[in-house]
Amino acid sequence: MALMTKKKSPSIQTVDSIIHARWIIPVEPVQTTYENYSLVIDKGHILELLPQNKCKKKYTSLIEHHLDTHVLTPGFVNTHTHAAMNLMRGLADDLPLMQWLNEHIWPTETQCINYDFVYQGTELAIAEMLRSGTTSFNDMYFFPDAAAKIAEKAGIRATIGLIMIDFPSAWAKDSDDYLHKGLQLHEQYHHHPLISCAFAPHAPYTVSDGPLKQIKIYAEELDIPIHIHLHETSDEVSQAVSQNQQSPIDRLYDLGLLSPLLIAVHMTQLNDDEIKLLAEHNVNIVHCPESNMKLASGFCPVGKLLAADINVALGTDGAASNNDLDMLSEMHSAALLAKAVAADASVLPAHQALQMATLNGAKALGLDSITGSLVAGKAADIIAIDLHNSECLPIFNPLSQIVYSSSREQITDVWVQGKHLLNKRQLTTLDIESIKKNAILWSEKIQGIFNKK
Amino acid sequence: MALMTKKKSPSIQTVDSIIHARWIIPVEPVQTTYENYSLVIDKGHILELLPQNKCKKKYTSLIEHHLDTHVLTPGFVNTHTHAAMNLMRGLADDLPLMQWLNEHIWPTETQCINYDFVYQGTELAIAEMLRSGTTSFNDMYFFPDAAAKIAEKAGIRATIGLIMIDFPSAWAKDSDDYLHKGLQLHEQYHHHPLISCAFAPHAPYTVSDGPLKQIKIYAEELDIPIHIHLHETSDEVSQAVSQNQQSPIDRLYDLGLLSPLLIAVHMTQLNDDEIKLLAEHNVNIVHCPESNMKLASGFCPVGKLLAADINVALGTDGAASNNDLDMLSEMHSAALLAKAVAADASVLPAHQALQMATLNGAKALGLDSITGSLVAGKAADIIAIDLHNSECLPIFNPLSQIVYSSSREQITDVWVQGKHLLNKRQLTTLDIESIKKNAILWSEKIQGIFNKK
Repeated sequence: MALMTKKKSPSIQTVDSIIHARWIIPVEPVQTTYENYSLVIDKGHILELLPQNKCKKKYTSLIEHHLDTHVLTPGFVNTHTHAAMNLMRGLADDLPLMQWLNEHIWPTETQCINYDFVYQGTELAIAEMLRSGTTSFNDMYFFPDAAAKIAEKAGIRATIGLIMIDFPSAWAKDSDDYLHKGLQLHEQYHHHPLISCAFAPHAPYTVSDGPLKQIKIYAEELDIPIHIHLHETSDEVSQAVSQNQQSPIDRLYDLGLLSPLLIAVHMTQLNDDEIKLLAEHNVNIVHCPESNMKLASGFCPVGKLLAADINVALGTDGAASNNDLDMLSEMHSAALLAKAVAADASVLPAHQALQMATLNGAKALGLDSITGSLVAGKAADIIAIDLHNSECLPIFNPLSQIVYSSSREQITDVWVQGKHLLNKRQLTTLDIESIKKNAILWSEKIQGIFNKK
Repeated sequence: MALMTKKKSPSIQTVDSIIHARWIIPVEPVQTTYENYSLVIDKGHILELLPQNKCKKKYTSLIEHHLDTHVLTPGFVNTHTHAAMNLMRGLADDLPLMQWLNEHIWPTETQCINYDFVYQGTELAIAEMLRSGTTSFNDMYFFPDAAAKIAEKAGIRATIGLIMIDFPSAWAKDSDDYLHKGLQLHEQYHHHPLISCAFAPHAPYTVSDGPLKQIKIYAEELDIPIHIHLHETSDEVSQAVSQNQQSPIDRLYDLGLLSPLLIAVHMTQLNDDEIKLLAEHNVNIVHCPESNMKLASGFCPVGKLLAADINVALGTDGAASNNDLDMLSEMHSAALLAKAVAADASVLPAHQALQMATLNGAKALGLDSITGSLVAGKAADIIAIDLHNSECLPIFNPLSQIVYSSSREQITDVWVQGKHLLNKRQLTTLDIESIKKNAILWSEKIQGIFNKK
């Protein structure tokens, strides 16, 4: 086992907190399940994982959690979302992508979006994410300063997208303005322990070559990721080919954007040559199975991507097209759909699905030295899932229960950097009642807009 | 609104119970949502649905439920499951159908199955089903007498499959024995208000022509459904064609089995001529999206089936291949997958998904005059879903929340035939702690078998 080896001491060491759990699935080493283990936390980091009986002889803490029917895993890394869109959950369903955007989402955004919308929408999303086990998220939306602010308050780990789009918005008036405000935000959070930034050009069809070239230069200089929607639908690809005589992937290749810094989201339209090209350039792919199905965008060939050794992470997309931010459900959908698409039931087995939902996301965000697995030295970004209910019993292998049988309400506790953000289903840094009230107020405003028309 | 019209009386009528709910989605009439309505229950049946303010002037009851943040819908009809297989949940995952059956499921069944296994396994399944809003289930398994007994004790509505298979089992030694025991069970429950029976020949590849012919005769005579796995995988179809020079559907057609009594489960392999044939004979189809994906069986063309006006119901399949009996999740998967398969985001909209999970199942089972929608005169088979949480807010349309955002733990209350079987998440007819203990004991026995090998 790849545990950190510590110098043994005859005396018992006092630490910040200890979690004793029935099972721990650390994701690293792969396919490992520890039974009756303890996880020792000190100064926000994982100090050691060791058998409970050994732990009692070695460590003590004023805070010890006994989770006798629970499994600990790394917190989920939701590698693609538009958190503030939680306020548009269920506003429009059962529509194709462009009709959904043109007739419902964009009109609402034009009328509603401001700092408060993004702050309160992201707050609602963070409440939902923490309550469903997400400890890190990768966001793309307007007013990223508002998203960063509330993420900081909540204590969740976040990669804030420095949005870039060719159209003016309430956030910025042109590409220079988007870039300038983005760089300012990156500067502001540069040394923050939980908040980082990524460039977030919306999509090839909404961002022109000029800003993409600038983003490439800055991303390399600052060593931060580039988060983009790519090959989401066949229309996107065919229109690009007819307009520019090349696919969006080929265009990004020409612009020098295919690299380990690229986080390419959706990717439902891929031929074998493109998969080879993406693998050669170590591009990260984010699979969003529920959004892709709901918008009928297509099937991401996850089995082929994994076979090509591409880093595939998992994202929920925004709640307006999902309609939740539930990574357990997303992992479940991903594991099931990949088998059906590959016509092979052995594709994307449970352990690989969990790795996609955790470590692979951290890797895409450049955070895998910090989070994504439960190993000594990493941040204590941890969730506890209670498996002792009639929906998950009996248990032959707790990993199977996590991926195939459990639901978000079984996530009892969440820690980020050692801080207990969800304690027996109660949020400790956010006021859930005021969040719910705000959500209802915003829905009344949005309905007012549509009723006026 | 198609409400029952009652003779008005100046006096207030006393009834068994009244549920006042924020929303009621009755499924019939289609695409209807009542807001701030009351549902009046008397003698196990729905007496009336009417606005809350009118209800207060017309009815009174000692039992009034105020569900101010909830939506009422018909209870779910799980139209295909193998309830007792809950004891094999997660025993083997990430394997193709025949390897999963031959190497894991069938060996376990050979060693374990007896009356107690089925009784306690079905009890675990019923606990799970009630806790996730299922009020009726259509079962297929050995020892159907045990399943009927515990369903009766729990008070859930059940269609018990009279299993038929060419192989001997602990339940019956040959096809005559299967048939005889089945008919006896049907006779026993013939007049039961909640338990009914259906013939359940396992699949065309496991039941020969003789017993299928007998089943056809008896099913027509007794007017009960025939529940069968059909065209589940491409191997099933291609092997049948190579062995018998006809597809399983064509064979059932020749045997006279294609009729409104037939409940054909899975149906992932269908060409346009077969869809036409099934429509002409009013065959009922049960879609099991999660099982079909998990076993990589294929994609049921739900969009085409609905366009052909075929009655399509929804089933979870057994927990060994799902791995839960969660109809909310199944409905979610069905609605998403159908859009992706049809490459059309408007296919299987939320209201149709809910109808598949309720009324269409009742219709397939021949129970649509009794259950499947909330209309006056039908049995009070009702569930309440609380939508007031950070995962479901804001609410533009509660139907969207049911299908796309809610989870089983939000189902707070369940009534079957007016009896309150789940009361604020507590089961009223089953002992959940003993059920969980039994599940663990059985898993230890099953693990013992595999460890011995």
